[in-house]
Amino acid sequence: MFSRKSTLAALLAIAMPGAYAQQKTDVPVYLDDSQPITKRVADALSRMTLEEKIAMIHAQSKFSSPGVPRLGIPENWTTDGPHGIRPEVLWDEWSQAGWTNDSCIAFPALTCLAATWNKDMALLYGTSIGEEARYRNKNILLGPGVNMYRTPLNGRNFEYMGEDPFLAGKMVVPYIKGVQSNGVAACVKHFALNNQETERHGVNVNVDDRTLYEIYLPAFKAAVQEGQAWAIMGSYNKYKGEHCCHNQYLLNDILRKEWGFEGVVVSDWGGVHDTRQAIFNGLDMEFGSWTNGLSWGKSNAYDAYYLAKPYQHLIQTGEVGTKELDEKVSRILRLSFLTTMNKNRPFGSFGTEAHALAGRRIATEGIVLLQNKNNVLPLQVGSVKKIAVIGENALKMMTVGGGSSSLKARYEVSPLDGLKKRIGTQAEIVFARGYVGDASGNYNGVVTGQNLAEKRSKAELLEEARTVAKNADVVIFIGGLNKSDFQDSEGNDRKSLGLPYGQDTVIRELAKVNKNLVVVNISGNAVAMPWANEVAGIVQGWFLGTETGNALAAVLTGDVNPSGKLPFSFPVKLEDVAAHAKGEFPGTKEETYNEGIFTGYRWHEKQQIKPLFAFGYGLSYTTFQYGKVTADKKSITAADSISFAVTVKNTGKRAGAETVQLYISDVKSSVPRPVKELKGFEKISLEPGEEKTVRFTIGKNALSFFDTAKHDWVAEAGEFEAVIGASSADVKSKVAFTLQ
Amino acid sequence: MFSRKSTLAALLAIAMPGAYAQQKTDVPVYLDDSQPITKRVADALSRMTLEEKIAMIHAQSKFSSPGVPRLGIPENWTTDGPHGIRPEVLWDEWSQAGWTNDSCIAFPALTCLAATWNKDMALLYGTSIGEEARYRNKNILLGPGVNMYRTPLNGRNFEYMGEDPFLAGKMVVPYIKGVQSNGVAACVKHFALNNQETERHGVNVNVDDRTLYEIYLPAFKAAVQEGQAWAIMGSYNKYKGEHCCHNQYLLNDILRKEWGFEGVVVSDWGGVHDTRQAIFNGLDMEFGSWTNGLSWGKSNAYDAYYLAKPYQHLIQTGEVGTKELDEKVSRILRLSFLTTMNKNRPFGSFGTEAHALAGRRIATEGIVLLQNKNNVLPLQVGSVKKIAVIGENALKMMTVGGGSSSLKARYEVSPLDGLKKRIGTQAEIVFARGYVGDASGNYNGVVTGQNLAEKRSKAELLEEARTVAKNADVVIFIGGLNKSDFQDSEGNDRKSLGLPYGQDTVIRELAKVNKNLVVVNISGNAVAMPWANEVAGIVQGWFLGTETGNALAAVLTGDVNPSGKLPFSFPVKLEDVAAHAKGEFPGTKEETYNEGIFTGYRWHEKQQIKPLFAFGYGLSYTTFQYGKVTADKKSITAADSISFAVTVKNTGKRAGAETVQLYISDVKSSVPRPVKELKGFEKISLEPGEEKTVRFTIGKNALSFFDTAKHDWVAEAGEFEAVIGASSADVKSKVAFTLQ
Repeated sequence: MFSRKSTLAALLAIAMPGAYAQQKTDVPVYLDDSQPITKRVADALSRMTLEEKIAMIHAQSKFSSPGVPRLGIPENWTTDGPHGIRPEVLWDEWSQAGWTNDSCIAFPALTCLAATWNKDMALLYGTSIGEEARYRNKNILLGPGVNMYRTPLNGRNFEYMGEDPFLAGKMVVPYIKGVQSNGVAACVKHFALNNQETERHGVNVNVDDRTLYEIYLPAFKAAVQEGQAWAIMGSYNKYKGEHCCHNQYLLNDILRKEWGFEGVVVSDWGGVHDTRQAIFNGLDMEFGSWTNGLSWGKSNAYDAYYLAKPYQHLIQTGEVGTKELDEKVSRILRLSFLTTMNKNRPFGSFGTEAHALAGRRIATEGIVLLQNKNNVLPLQVGSVKKIAVIGENALKMMTVGGGSSSLKARYEVSPLDGLKKRIGTQAEIVFARGYVGDASGNYNGVVTGQNLAEKRSKAELLEEARTVAKNADVVIFIGGLNKSDFQDSEGNDRKSLGLPYGQDTVIRELAKVNKNLVVVNISGNAVAMPWANEVAGIVQGWFLGTETGNALAAVLTGDVNPSGKLPFSFPVKLEDVAAHAKGEFPGTKEETYNEGIFTGYRWHEKQQIKPLFAFGYGLSYTTFQYGKVTADKKSITAADSISFAVTVKNTGKRAGAETVQLYISDVKSSVPRPVKELKGFEKISLEPGEEKTVRFTIGKNALSFFDTAKHDWVAEAGEFEAVIGASSADVKSKVAFTLQ
Repeated sequence: MFSRKSTLAALLAIAMPGAYAQQKTDVPVYLDDSQPITKRVADALSRMTLEEKIAMIHAQSKFSSPGVPRLGIPENWTTDGPHGIRPEVLWDEWSQAGWTNDSCIAFPALTCLAATWNKDMALLYGTSIGEEARYRNKNILLGPGVNMYRTPLNGRNFEYMGEDPFLAGKMVVPYIKGVQSNGVAACVKHFALNNQETERHGVNVNVDDRTLYEIYLPAFKAAVQEGQAWAIMGSYNKYKGEHCCHNQYLLNDILRKEWGFEGVVVSDWGGVHDTRQAIFNGLDMEFGSWTNGLSWGKSNAYDAYYLAKPYQHLIQTGEVGTKELDEKVSRILRLSFLTTMNKNRPFGSFGTEAHALAGRRIATEGIVLLQNKNNVLPLQVGSVKKIAVIGENALKMMTVGGGSSSLKARYEVSPLDGLKKRIGTQAEIVFARGYVGDASGNYNGVVTGQNLAEKRSKAELLEEARTVAKNADVVIFIGGLNKSDFQDSEGNDRKSLGLPYGQDTVIRELAKVNKNLVVVNISGNAVAMPWANEVAGIVQGWFLGTETGNALAAVLTGDVNPSGKLPFSFPVKLEDVAAHAKGEFPGTKEETYNEGIFTGYRWHEKQQIKPLFAFGYGLSYTTFQYGKVTADKKSITAADSISFAVTVKNTGKRAGAETVQLYISDVKSSVPRPVKELKGFEKISLEPGEEKTVRFTIGKNALSFFDTAKHDWVAEAGEFEAVIGASSADVKSKVAFTLQ
């Protein structure tokens, strides 16, 4: 059963327990905390057999992979996902295992985190979810996601951080640091170009190098270089004809060689398709391969994984060497020393009030007030007598469904319950459903949503809603998307920009009977709002997790002054989106990003298309006055930095927070450049009447574009402008400077 | 969902991540390794809510109980059992969970460990199994068991350490220390008087105090006071009318007050029957209650546990206070700090060659050579041409079955395979089954054994075996008991002392056709051997675990010189056993130990009954010559110690090990005392011709009996004898001394 090699040595060692005990105190290098990790890795590697190495680089169950039981190196246990700790599943099935200790805190979706524009919130989020992962003994958290928002139809946008690489890059770093402070590896995903769910396993993405480097990679680079992420997940799609889980260009050339990534490349579940590519093209750990049930040696379905027996066979027949295997195992060992074998990591905590409050805090900072005619918000609790709440999303459970991010939350406060709890007896709240969405969503056998069996016709539902709305002082319509297939959900994309289930009609009818209509859009994507001018208030509500209802109620009633700003543009119509106007979406076999670097606000500004709501936009219950931006220099060299200062004053009657945004314009360039690009932001809190000065310092990096011919970043001498805005569309002032 | 109490504090704490980060570095006392455990316990306790305390004292699943997720105090995960780490089961079912990472090393049964008479082997055993538990993230190992062997019919004797309290007490201590050196709590079981399986949940054991203290408690006392066990398990049966899991006399009066036990009292699974007794009579953690499915608050079957909602309700209505709850929780917290929260505990290892070899080493030291006429053993490999192996136990898997100690072993080498591997092509090995046992045993849905579907009649099987035996140079019959119901198995007792399945007939028939017949008895109990004089060799083989076949082959071929000695007497017939001659067995509602302290060899010697094989007996392939024992004093006071010395010489031709035994006789006493009692033993290894001097030092404790009237140990002045034996029946020499 065992190799006979060390039999005698072991027998001798146990000849006398005195010697046995002695042996235990002679700590080998790999178990010696005082040794550098590289030495510990090398020592552990040198003790491992071929079989132990092969075992370590692929799954043993749905979410775990073996450690080295002989050497006391623990197993690796991964967990979805970016928004909360996935419940336990059976060993080799997707079904939940029926444990009762795994009900987590559901945090807001990452779009909401991005909408806070607050790096402190990202640290709070990462620290909190890392504590949850740690307590549940998971050492690899499958998140965060920083794929760039290319089109509002991507079903998985809600898991990512918006359309701007700078914003996502700044927000992802503290998230990672927070997670990893718990001795849990963040696994940044999905690397890279996984910007559609349709045909995600087969589509080959064609993108020019400049677009790749300027738009789709910077957030990953920040995660790796600034966040020091210990793991990254390859994406399902292909790039240059190779699946991204074993892609020479992305994993070897860019991630490892250019960026110096020392962590572990984890496959997406079922993202591996070829043993040789998996060996040579940078993958370290294989999970979820659809070889289950095939027999390779007949002992275990996991033996058939591309990096299991097939790899071992190639080594044993001499067709491939062991250099790559040793590299993979070394990286995994390094991760073990940083996580499970870090004796000083904290113990974590799970399902706690502190985490729920962290989630609520992030949610209230991320909710975006998009429109507020006649100060319809905040609700005047005390004076308003009757509030109509209309719409299915006032009730619908949103922590379940949507794919791998689906959770078993300890609890989820619905918007309606949150409002009822906050308003109490101070006003009457009447609910009408208004419309009925999908009977249920379904993902991996988990039934999502909690729709009632509505037997009434659309006309009856609408009529009831009209009646309820007509008799109310104010109407809160709570609709939007949900976690069902073809909405905000993994595995497929949305079919159109419009709201589903006839909500546009309902909203318009309600607007006709009550001018105090507020629409709360629950979604992780932009939606069309053809009725925007017909309603008084619009609130972007995201998917807010466990504390959804409490967070929404806090903003709607003014307990919290909204301060979120959009992390992606809301276009008026789908044709205003670059990927649809000029690019290809969805691709089937091939998909070419013809729009290049001009995505989101970069496209709108280039084409002078007015968005419905611009990137970076969001209102407050107070008002802010910006001073004129100044620069500390008029001219810099490539080695210099330059600082800008701008004062912002709270000119309203209540405390509030404002995110001041710095964009850079390259006035003249040898290549086409965006009108401006985000290169700084700072969120400040201001008491009524208070004024603060915000300072930004940038260097040549902020002025550079990616020169494809040189394969490097280039900042061309010439004139630039620093543009201060309250959003990308709301420019407050500019200051010019020169790069010599 | 949460108490509102700390809402504000928590929100303030997260107002700025700077403060948040700061908060994390201010380590609270309970997380501060540099603080004494008592302070850490008190600090953690002071932070816990009533609900958190109640949750911690009862199960949440079959084998786990909650920690405090809010405070980062990990869950407690228990595991059967004394012989290996039980495979994972489903959350709330006994069925295995189908994991593929939980195939353990099966160690020899504890009877075998006791038969080594080697404390070093107990340390090796405990250390090894503790490493296995640690790697599998179990922090409470449900073992070892030290119930005293009262009758060979007890189905669970194989899990215990024999009939003598001194031997068991000495062997249990290093086992515990070994386990706990891994940061895993040993949970000594079953406390106490659980000496029959029949009616084990209801029977009330009547035993006088002297017998309780002299026979049934000393091994537990050693485990607690010398072994410093962190946990102990209450037994199923009653004593003085109270179930032992909540027994005022055993748990409060003796265990805690007299012995000063500071650890956790864990219930046996389903051993709790009353909330008030569970509260007040010393229990700390409740597991396996048969209230599953009942609803108490309807939320969770575990809420109906006696120490769950029913306890909480009594506290909330003011009917009981919280003092006992705080004591229970404090003890559990202490265990957490010693196990899961001990950052310096090692990582363990699992299913390793080192553990398999440790198991083999223990097995080869525990196998007892009972008879060896004409030096039929060791097998002369090289000269013997044809070996017949006969009997079902040559094939039968013994690591599965028998109750809670059933295992999913990484592998198990059968005796036949072990012999074949060792003999190789040096002789022909022919197998015949000889008889057929139970089609299968069954425990908790686990099918045990691996019987072939034997279609042949008994006569055909016997005839085949006779033919095979007749044509062989030597016959190894491998039979005995197995892990089926009514054999060596939890939950019921044996029905008779005799071998099952007509083995006696088979053995006698084989003896007629081949004089070189060796019987290997696989069992954890004594069996009747009416054919003992008709066979050449007899080997007591125990249940040997993963390395069964290799260990047996090593002893049978002489690779290892046997050195095991019996930890319990083999009586000729059941009536020679005190519990059957004078006591009661099995009891139903009441069971009285009328035999008192006179169990095992104490009874045989008192009654001058010659056993088949005596306690302490075992042969070697070499011979030992004992010198005369000497004492360093002729007379001592109660404050003195006295030392004895005896030389032992290996007078044979090969190296071997001998266990030298010291018994004490109280020549005259005011109370009836055993002829002699074991008070010392030492196992020594001797090369051919080598001589060593063994020294024993004893004090008044070794001379004392328990005086019921005084409720204390008393050593009466007068004459004593120190008796040196190679077994209890093989006295080598004596020396007299006086206690003044």
